[in-house]
Amino acid sequence: MLKSKLYLFVLILIIPGMYAQSPGNGYTDLVNPFIGTEGAGNTFPGAALPFGMVKLGPDSGDLLSNSGYVPDEDIKGFSHTHVSGTGGGAKYGNILVMPYTGPFELNGIRSAAANEKASPGYFSADLLDYDIKAQFTVSHRVGFHKYEFSGDATPGLLINAGSLLGEGHCCDENQELIGSEIQVISDSEIKGYSRVRGGWNKGGAYTVYFYAITDKPAISSATWKGEEISTTQKSRYNSGEKTGAFLEFDRNMKELNLKVGISFISSEKAKANLEKEVPHWDFEKLRQESSGKWEDMLNNIQVSTKNNDLKTIFYTALYHTMLMPTNRTGENPYWKSELPYYDDYYAIWDTYRATNPLLTLILPDRETQIVNSLLNIYQHEGYMPDSRSGNSTGRTQGGSNTDMVIADAILKGLEDIDYELAYEAMIQNAEIPPGGKQETNGRGGINKYIELGYVPAEYEPEKTDPSLHTPKLYDRAGTRTVEYAANDWAIAQVAKELGEEEAYKKYKKRASNWANLWRPVETEGVKGFIWPKRRDGSWVEDFSVEKYGSWGNFFYEANSWEYSFYVPQDVNSLIDSTGGKKEFIKRLDIFFENEHFKVDNEPSFFTPTLYTYAGYQYRTNERIRKIIEENYTAQRDGIPGNDDAGSMSAWLVFNSLGFYPNAGQDVYIITSPHFKEAILDIGNDKELILKAENLSDENIYIEKVLLNGSPLNRAWFRHSEIDEGGEMEFIMTSRPTDFGTKNLPPSLSDKGLK
Amino acid sequence: MLKSKLYLFVLILIIPGMYAQSPGNGYTDLVNPFIGTEGAGNTFPGAALPFGMVKLGPDSGDLLSNSGYVPDEDIKGFSHTHVSGTGGGAKYGNILVMPYTGPFELNGIRSAAANEKASPGYFSADLLDYDIKAQFTVSHRVGFHKYEFSGDATPGLLINAGSLLGEGHCCDENQELIGSEIQVISDSEIKGYSRVRGGWNKGGAYTVYFYAITDKPAISSATWKGEEISTTQKSRYNSGEKTGAFLEFDRNMKELNLKVGISFISSEKAKANLEKEVPHWDFEKLRQESSGKWEDMLNNIQVSTKNNDLKTIFYTALYHTMLMPTNRTGENPYWKSELPYYDDYYAIWDTYRATNPLLTLILPDRETQIVNSLLNIYQHEGYMPDSRSGNSTGRTQGGSNTDMVIADAILKGLEDIDYELAYEAMIQNAEIPPGGKQETNGRGGINKYIELGYVPAEYEPEKTDPSLHTPKLYDRAGTRTVEYAANDWAIAQVAKELGEEEAYKKYKKRASNWANLWRPVETEGVKGFIWPKRRDGSWVEDFSVEKYGSWGNFFYEANSWEYSFYVPQDVNSLIDSTGGKKEFIKRLDIFFENEHFKVDNEPSFFTPTLYTYAGYQYRTNERIRKIIEENYTAQRDGIPGNDDAGSMSAWLVFNSLGFYPNAGQDVYIITSPHFKEAILDIGNDKELILKAENLSDENIYIEKVLLNGSPLNRAWFRHSEIDEGGEMEFIMTSRPTDFGTKNLPPSLSDKGLK
Repeated sequence: MLKSKLYLFVLILIIPGMYAQSPGNGYTDLVNPFIGTEGAGNTFPGAALPFGMVKLGPDSGDLLSNSGYVPDEDIKGFSHTHVSGTGGGAKYGNILVMPYTGPFELNGIRSAAANEKASPGYFSADLLDYDIKAQFTVSHRVGFHKYEFSGDATPGLLINAGSLLGEGHCCDENQELIGSEIQVISDSEIKGYSRVRGGWNKGGAYTVYFYAITDKPAISSATWKGEEISTTQKSRYNSGEKTGAFLEFDRNMKELNLKVGISFISSEKAKANLEKEVPHWDFEKLRQESSGKWEDMLNNIQVSTKNNDLKTIFYTALYHTMLMPTNRTGENPYWKSELPYYDDYYAIWDTYRATNPLLTLILPDRETQIVNSLLNIYQHEGYMPDSRSGNSTGRTQGGSNTDMVIADAILKGLEDIDYELAYEAMIQNAEIPPGGKQETNGRGGINKYIELGYVPAEYEPEKTDPSLHTPKLYDRAGTRTVEYAANDWAIAQVAKELGEEEAYKKYKKRASNWANLWRPVETEGVKGFIWPKRRDGSWVEDFSVEKYGSWGNFFYEANSWEYSFYVPQDVNSLIDSTGGKKEFIKRLDIFFENEHFKVDNEPSFFTPTLYTYAGYQYRTNERIRKIIEENYTAQRDGIPGNDDAGSMSAWLVFNSLGFYPNAGQDVYIITSPHFKEAILDIGNDKELILKAENLSDENIYIEKVLLNGSPLNRAWFRHSEIDEGGEMEFIMTSRPTDFGTKNLPPSLSDKGLK
Repeated sequence: MLKSKLYLFVLILIIPGMYAQSPGNGYTDLVNPFIGTEGAGNTFPGAALPFGMVKLGPDSGDLLSNSGYVPDEDIKGFSHTHVSGTGGGAKYGNILVMPYTGPFELNGIRSAAANEKASPGYFSADLLDYDIKAQFTVSHRVGFHKYEFSGDATPGLLINAGSLLGEGHCCDENQELIGSEIQVISDSEIKGYSRVRGGWNKGGAYTVYFYAITDKPAISSATWKGEEISTTQKSRYNSGEKTGAFLEFDRNMKELNLKVGISFISSEKAKANLEKEVPHWDFEKLRQESSGKWEDMLNNIQVSTKNNDLKTIFYTALYHTMLMPTNRTGENPYWKSELPYYDDYYAIWDTYRATNPLLTLILPDRETQIVNSLLNIYQHEGYMPDSRSGNSTGRTQGGSNTDMVIADAILKGLEDIDYELAYEAMIQNAEIPPGGKQETNGRGGINKYIELGYVPAEYEPEKTDPSLHTPKLYDRAGTRTVEYAANDWAIAQVAKELGEEEAYKKYKKRASNWANLWRPVETEGVKGFIWPKRRDGSWVEDFSVEKYGSWGNFFYEANSWEYSFYVPQDVNSLIDSTGGKKEFIKRLDIFFENEHFKVDNEPSFFTPTLYTYAGYQYRTNERIRKIIEENYTAQRDGIPGNDDAGSMSAWLVFNSLGFYPNAGQDVYIITSPHFKEAILDIGNDKELILKAENLSDENIYIEKVLLNGSPLNRAWFRHSEIDEGGEMEFIMTSRPTDFGTKNLPPSLSDKGLK
């Protein structure tokens, strides 16, 4: 970040008109949307509102990048739909617009870019090949483009309804165009749509409609379909091919403004969205509004620190937690409902751990909407989604982790949710086998899990093409078993809240099923691992705890080192299984020191806090501090892995504030305060003030914690202790203390959990 | 029929210009599309091509009728999409057009009708309230309307994008409008769409787009949305409401022609369809073409009889077998494929028995397309559909009866089908539990069926709302068990054809599973019935063989009397189970005489032929002759039950020709010849000529059969014996003979089946 800031500084001196900071002059100024765009983060650098439907940004290079953006590659245009931080086959990248100068060349329009700048709701770049400065801002469903032409060549504008990301991706995760349409309806208006299926979630067809209008009339226009260009056909109907249009403008035109309304309903709806949201041609006004909306989000947490990099890291992370899911209320083509509709859960497996709890804390109304959207999908499709994009529920990574989201919501008191309906949806997950749809719905292998207490390791012979959502029958048996057990505890808690005592007992019992795969094998001096077991109860010998898996393997996206710590519902029993607290601490140390911990991997998100469950809060604190220091920076490669719809970022936000949720419980573990002060707006005019007295580079340890002036005497707290706001004071010191050695966090087995 | 023919005759004499017969002057003249529109048939009387996408006909009364049409009720307009012969919640009825005169009244335009006339591809009616004669003809995707105005009031035309059938239907089977759009784009052009979900199959959203053009300009136009009418807003975008438009024309206009292109892709595609299929304004020309296409279909069977009613019954039935499924190749919004795409399988449970075998025999290329369409759906959605409409697979009635369609195809030698893929799709049905999607996919309860050899009778406690495709777990356990067993035999046969010997043995064994529910209880003097059995093997005592079931019950749409005959794969074993041939014949007699046989019910379709399996062909012959005589007429109520996409009709066609297929086998049973001669065009320039020598009202019995001049010596034949064409001669006589007493039809258990 230092480098780019200096660069900006130079620019500011010499070209003041190109001052790139957000007009908000507040927390938005602290956000650098380029963080995570290099390295592994795959973050989206373009312009978007919080949870915004339009995500307008550059698509570069070979159009295989998940975010569209590829540093230093030629830009092919700016498309209106993206996701952020994702892996696998790319999604979206629809309705691509590109200004150019000189003669049009089909498939030949692209430009090197310089001076790329981004702030919340804004993106700009100089398109060097065409002498164009391009700026972008957005409303929720509209992209506003401002192009300044400085050369002499004829200005042109292309709108490509056939462009998309990830077309050539491998492994059945490619996006594929089903069809597209374009219509030049006047000398300043174009409409059409793009219909696409596939991508990482292997989703069905979705359609992105648009209506575009320029502030100056074109002097000529043409359309294309496939490879054929026509200046006479102004309308190209959908026959499965790629279509687009280009306009040419007066040679003397120096500035062109363009608004593009987007809809998932129709082009007419896209037009209505445009007319409603951006009835004017004032780019700067919309940019201010867009920035203001971000400011309203970001100032929900106000942190004080002299570490400017940390501030940038923090607010950029906070920004990244609010790009997804996408609010598509009013844009669902499949059903009508009073409930909100969000798309781009990508995936709940990633976000239930930190992102959803963060929203519950600082944006409870938003999280309520998101939970209701999951129920809306359940009502109409029969299961809540683990992943969803393009209006299509996609792959379930492990367990039915919407269960964790529901439990988190009810235990933290989110209102205006039909919890009876939510409970029904959880039971659907827990009891009704998804059968041939196991890759997308509910819990694959649930019959065997119910029968045996674990998902057995044997793979059924594959009967069908794995691309058809019917992978191996007990695929991901390890991940499924440990996550189903955690999910079952989530169901037990909701059952208890609803007075379903029998169900509470049933699911509480099932929540211990992780132990059925616990095998007392020893390696690297630690004993006991989650291990594949056959239907007949025998262990699979051909297995290694270091074996990293994915689809079709025993574990999904991790190995047994990581998953053998995943018992968030009953850490106490886990500790016992490993041989007691001393052995457990040793195991954790070996885990971190021998580099089995994967900072970029969700199954390890909660692991650093486990020291605290064994009475070693200071080790949690040290580990987390080190993880942040070594992995999160204010540079473009400053996110250690796929941000996964803001998941890495939410982890950072919580832990730098000094606590971290055990998702699906009402419990937070005190971790590693990084700010002298942090003021959290937790809704309903309530504030939670966090203070870290004596915090310094040396004073990183917690001596004691005062909650509303009284000693807390433990290294964890419940949501109900802070949900009315208040003040939590961390008294910091330079050496480990006995803070957190007593009154350990609750576990299922000690009945400390509700 | 006599009455309506007389009525026509009078009309022809007095108003020659209104001559209503088809211009084909061939077999189309013998079709009366009104047969089945009264009584229970629910047939569609409007204009459509064979397997045509547009089915343009009247929507009357309260818009709850399955076909749209209700005799003697006011017509509210003419919509472009329908199905024929269906029950339950209505489907389609989209894009309703209505001419009128005088002032427009929202929700008030309707008219009494007279002089309704219909022939293949044509419909007309006089709209008495407005003095309008309305005529309709069609191409595959275009409706052509011709309106003649004879009054003085201002002519008007409404196009309603928000109208649909079955909106108020009960039981979660209602159709619901998701949204609609209308745009008046010039004084002669309107476009828009209707987006709807639900109906009998509880399908997801489908969208019917249209583009409409008049041959004369309107002098004014207006649109509506909800209850609000505007003369200034020419475009109404989709905000979930009902929209429409109306045009007013010059007071002196006496004739208005209208073409409406339909598409499931877009309005632009609808326009392209219109321009491609009907580039002219010559109504009569299109009517001739339309009639000609039907003539080409109907003359595939040329029958000779002096019984004109029987001719009308026969050709109308043949016509009804070709209305569905709907060929939507090129109109699938969800994926691209080289394979054809058909929709409106409504349902395979109905059509696999007679309709699909009929198409295999006389339109093998069409049946090949239909099978490939099922595979296309399997490839993209994971299961072949049992029912499908509006691009959405819906309810599975009993077994996975696409298996029967595939077996029928391979055994009868249909080419250009990827049978390896088809076999994979069958295995998917047979092995992969559909879990929570059991109402729509594969075989519900398959795990238990595999484990126990039957689907147990216990209903699992209902976990979720039954409207969400998750009914009781072992819902329809009886129907499922007997049909799964028949389906397993279909799989066995395909496995054998593909050289999968182990699989052949496995599924052959499973094909006897029906016997696991055979309980030797006695009633009305017969012993042994399919009976509900619990998981533990005990029988359910609270059950009656007369208990008629539906969704959620042990049997679907029949009782144990009917289902206890449904063992088409192994009639010999069934006969043994009932106590031998003598007992079996007695049982059949009691079945028919005590009125347990339901002529309108598919599970009983094959039962009359069972006499032949016991050596009593003449009883089959007598029964079928009686069933036809008593239940099928040339009157409007001449179809005894829901025609079920032509199923009742296909039964009639086969049996009146004198044979009937055992679907999913290569076997036909000789039944009851009704024609002196019938010439079947069986494709590839081959003809099968059927002759019934000495046939008369008295000579209804078969003395012997000559196949290509040689005695057949049995009352059944294989498809391979006729697939090169040839001549089959039935020598008829006045009394029962020993024909068919020997060389009985083959069964699984006697190894007479492949």
